[in-house]
Amino acid sequence: MNQKSEITKKLLPVMDTMELLNGRWKIVIMTTLYLGGTMRFNEIKNSIPRITGRVLSKDLKFLESHQIVSRTVKDTSPITVEYELTEYGKTLDSVFRALTEWGIQHRKRIIRK
Amino acid sequence: MNQKSEITKKLLPVMDTMELLNGRWKIVIMTTLYLGGTMRFNEIKNSIPRITGRVLSKDLKFLESHQIVSRTVKDTSPITVEYELTEYGKTLDSVFRALTEWGIQHRKRIIRK
Repeated sequence: MNQKSEITKKLLPVMDTMELLNGRWKIVIMTTLYLGGTMRFNEIKNSIPRITGRVLSKDLKFLESHQIVSRTVKDTSPITVEYELTEYGKTLDSVFRALTEWGIQHRKRIIRK
Repeated sequence: MNQKSEITKKLLPVMDTMELLNGRWKIVIMTTLYLGGTMRFNEIKNSIPRITGRVLSKDLKFLESHQIVSRTVKDTSPITVEYELTEYGKTLDSVFRALTEWGIQHRKRIIRK
């Protein structure tokens, strides 16, 4: 098919977004930084139940390379490394809010069963 | 930690949602049905660039088992099988819209580079 259907055209932005946010943890990590502001690695790790350091480290690097998260090394003793959402990352707030609101309803539904 | 931080409490609904919608394709499939209404398997497949029949079949079954998608077999000749979002699946519309809106901006940003 050379001619894309209307549905396909409308899908492309969603596919791009999911290409970027694919995986179990990326959106969870971003929501953590959205809620917590500037955070150290262990603060993020301790906030997210069951995430491993390896996955968190890999996903933070990925999000940094896509300018969604910024990483700042502070010359303290010992050195501290802080993460936060970039201005661009913060534009995802409507996604975090929509997922949170739906998740609250979904959780009620699961618990009711 | 027995005492959950405020951030962790707020994260739990997002984690539940991502547990459910995890993976590259589920949200894309649901958005397709959100845009297209009632659709046959091949209509869905043809609307989504690069998805394989195997993945589509597996994810549709998963979404059916979670009452997000309904599957109807029609006694036509040959038999037709139709999929659509359930009423519950439709409650995810704010998630689809937020992802679409962000994706449109994100696509512009990528193309500009």
